Amino acid sequence: MQKVADFIGKNSDRYVNELREFCAIPSVSTKSEHRPDIERCAQWLAGQMKNIGLENVEIIPTQGHPIIYADWLHAPGKPTLLFYGHYDVQPAEPLDLWLSPPWELTLRDGDLYARGVVDDKGQVYIHLKALEAFFQQEGKLPVNVKFMIEGEEEVGSENVYEFMEKERKRLAADALVVSDTTMLGKGIPSVCYGLRGLSYYEMVVTGPTVDLHSGSFGGAVPNPLNIACEMMAQLHDADGRVTIPEFYDDVVPLTDQERKILAELPFDEKNFQKTTGAKQLPGEKGYTVPERIWARPTLDINGMFGGYTGEGAKTVIGSTATVKFSTRLVPNQDPDKIARLVQAHMQRIAPPSVNIDFRILSTGKWWLAPFDHPIVQAGKTALEKGFGKKAVFIREGGSIPLVSMMYEALGKPCVLLGFGLPDENAHAPNERLNLENYLKGILSIAHFYHEVGQLPGEAARAA
Amino acid sequence: MQKVADFIGKNSDRYVNELREFCAIPSVSTKSEHRPDIERCAQWLAGQMKNIGLENVEIIPTQGHPIIYADWLHAPGKPTLLFYGHYDVQPAEPLDLWLSPPWELTLRDGDLYARGVVDDKGQVYIHLKALEAFFQQEGKLPVNVKFMIEGEEEVGSENVYEFMEKERKRLAADALVVSDTTMLGKGIPSVCYGLRGLSYYEMVVTGPTVDLHSGSFGGAVPNPLNIACEMMAQLHDADGRVTIPEFYDDVVPLTDQERKILAELPFDEKNFQKTTGAKQLPGEKGYTVPERIWARPTLDINGMFGGYTGEGAKTVIGSTATVKFSTRLVPNQDPDKIARLVQAHMQRIAPPSVNIDFRILSTGKWWLAPFDHPIVQAGKTALEKGFGKKAVFIREGGSIPLVSMMYEALGKPCVLLGFGLPDENAHAPNERLNLENYLKGILSIAHFYHEVGQLPGEAARAA
Repeated sequence: MQKVADFIGKNSDRYVNELREFCAIPSVSTKSEHRPDIERCAQWLAGQMKNIGLENVEIIPTQGHPIIYADWLHAPGKPTLLFYGHYDVQPAEPLDLWLSPPWELTLRDGDLYARGVVDDKGQVYIHLKALEAFFQQEGKLPVNVKFMIEGEEEVGSENVYEFMEKERKRLAADALVVSDTTMLGKGIPSVCYGLRGLSYYEMVVTGPTVDLHSGSFGGAVPNPLNIACEMMAQLHDADGRVTIPEFYDDVVPLTDQERKILAELPFDEKNFQKTTGAKQLPGEKGYTVPERIWARPTLDINGMFGGYTGEGAKTVIGSTATVKFSTRLVPNQDPDKIARLVQAHMQRIAPPSVNIDFRILSTGKWWLAPFDHPIVQAGKTALEKGFGKKAVFIREGGSIPLVSMMYEALGKPCVLLGFGLPDENAHAPNERLNLENYLKGILSIAHFYHEVGQLPGEAARAA
Repeated sequence: MQKVADFIGKNSDRYVNELREFCAIPSVSTKSEHRPDIERCAQWLAGQMKNIGLENVEIIPTQGHPIIYADWLHAPGKPTLLFYGHYDVQPAEPLDLWLSPPWELTLRDGDLYARGVVDDKGQVYIHLKALEAFFQQEGKLPVNVKFMIEGEEEVGSENVYEFMEKERKRLAADALVVSDTTMLGKGIPSVCYGLRGLSYYEMVVTGPTVDLHSGSFGGAVPNPLNIACEMMAQLHDADGRVTIPEFYDDVVPLTDQERKILAELPFDEKNFQKTTGAKQLPGEKGYTVPERIWARPTLDINGMFGGYTGEGAKTVIGSTATVKFSTRLVPNQDPDKIARLVQAHMQRIAPPSVNIDFRILSTGKWWLAPFDHPIVQAGKTALEKGFGKKAVFIREGGSIPLVSMMYEALGKPCVLLGFGLPDENAHAPNERLNLENYLKGILSIAHFYHEVGQLPGEAARAA
């Protein structure tokens, strides 16, 4: 392991330069115009996997974007880890807010800036470089590994589910490993043991069938924007609670013990607020910030438009208003049930003067880990060796639907070792990854594969 | 007058072809990129005015878009009419909803389709062609005329006010004539005796200073779209009344007599609803549709956007939400006072977690005519001769701030003779002008100049 660690220490410049190539490919999965970039990104990544020494590298077409599979299975008696990550990224817009071009990795004040650098390209690359160090220094890996990297994480991961159903055997493993989450804060290595679920909706409210002059018609026609605002405003009460009937029915209340553990974490609320730039941190009454973002469900509008959105004034009543919104979900809310409740509620509160076109764009389940599992504990040990610091167990407010799906379908534990920071603008302009975390991440993950290699295959499979 | 009428009857094809040239120039005043088109449109129109026989044609630069002035003052002892119109148009977007290109006048089923054809290019051109007929057939006009055609009506007419203040003498007249309104319905020639005022606002709500991941932050940050919806939803009560304090304080209630007159008009509510395509016609409780659109104040969102507005899903909490909205005003509401009330109210109801940037984009006063004035009555007579049908007095829900300003500043009556129809999509895709109304409009306006020419100058000036 020392030779591996030394090798990693000497290759930091190369690790940055290779990541620059990865981030230069605008593999935006949401927009159909980026389809060729997605293909190019899959090709590039598959090439990298082959180069470091992984075997059976395959780009598998799906109805959407391709999945990349690879493995190395020459450690008999050792556990098998299935790594999951994604090479697709969020759109870069709004472009004018980026301080350096989103598709040119730029090092500034110790941070690497680029779209996708933390979510999830840099974290996928951490794993490849950790494995490369073993191949280079020891000619082999301490464990068996399977890699599955998809291109549709940002659009709901639909095709990867089908693939996993079909390829159960090929994907069989003792545990799933994911690096797509954040640390609690700088210098606090963190194992994530919980994720929120997500159901995402798009609602189009139609009043008049054409845009109308707001003078000639204002006062006698249903204005879809007025009405959309009225409908959305009804979804929270004065205490910040979601008002949709039955929404909280299946929520498991936080126990006093959990609240105590969360309260004892070195969560820096001042820094969290500074990161957001917001004047205050409002939310559901009676819960702390970590409780609200990790363990309580929420409803947020993610996008909205209608009428005239250009420069200056236009005296129009638009024909439609579009609202994109989503609910973040916690144990034991069923995302499909919640989606049905939300849809029924919106149809119910819509005034009879408008038409509602409601679409469920995606649903994904929350996840909560068994954190006494030896492989999960190996993750904590590895982080502490990689960073030289005590690691903590945290949750994450975001969603990785595949993690809960894997956990449910395959009955295997998941280890979430994230190297992002909460203020690194995943999904926003000026996305970044701290350079030190990137490099310590590679070292930590090498330790992780090494630690898991110390476990007998049976122990790993036991839980 | 018969020779003039015959000439008009013979030139219909030419009238359409010339209007096609006028409408081909995308003189959109809202968008700075159309500045050269605005200049080109002013040049083209000034050329037309010179060609028909108007004198002192001048393109007058302003801080914004130029004003075109022209006159003909060789009818001593006769009244002087000041015609006001505008050559600027609304943006054509959304372009994909147009059935024929917005800048190519297209005749379809008896209607002329083009952006600006009814608002206000076609109606300006009606006046020029009526005058041309007199110049061609009689070598002179029956009255003195002054023409003032501006290029900023769709953006608040700011510079024309300054021009009128400065050029009081040059613009002195016995009455103002405007053709920028609609008829009550097809085959119902209408003199408009009232307009609503308008105050237009833009509000930007800022929560976080950057876009945030809705998973990692949702539940603990002020979401500007959620909040903008909540703020806008508060502005109406369950009866459709505006809830802003003092908003109705200065509204003059409709008298029983006015309500009776409005109720007796051949207002076709079925057709009005069909025009809008809306399932119902909601609005302020206790008032009929004509009352609501002509004589009651309203508040409508004209445009709104924030967060992710592209294709598919993006799990983001946007940093800002922008709302463009406006209030339509009636006697005796003061648009500046109302704008101050609205601004103060929005600041007051904004939660302390967000910043509000509130801008008043424009204000314009309502107007109500003295309809017993001989020049106003001459308008009615002219319409009846031009259309061969009984004409009615109506109001209009839209705003022409200049009309009230002229009326206040110069103390002169205004005659509003409109040839549009309520369903002709002014400000919307597929704007149109009925061809028959265009041609009968030219004949009616010729009759109008003739009728006013029969009035002694003193009678015109008396009221």
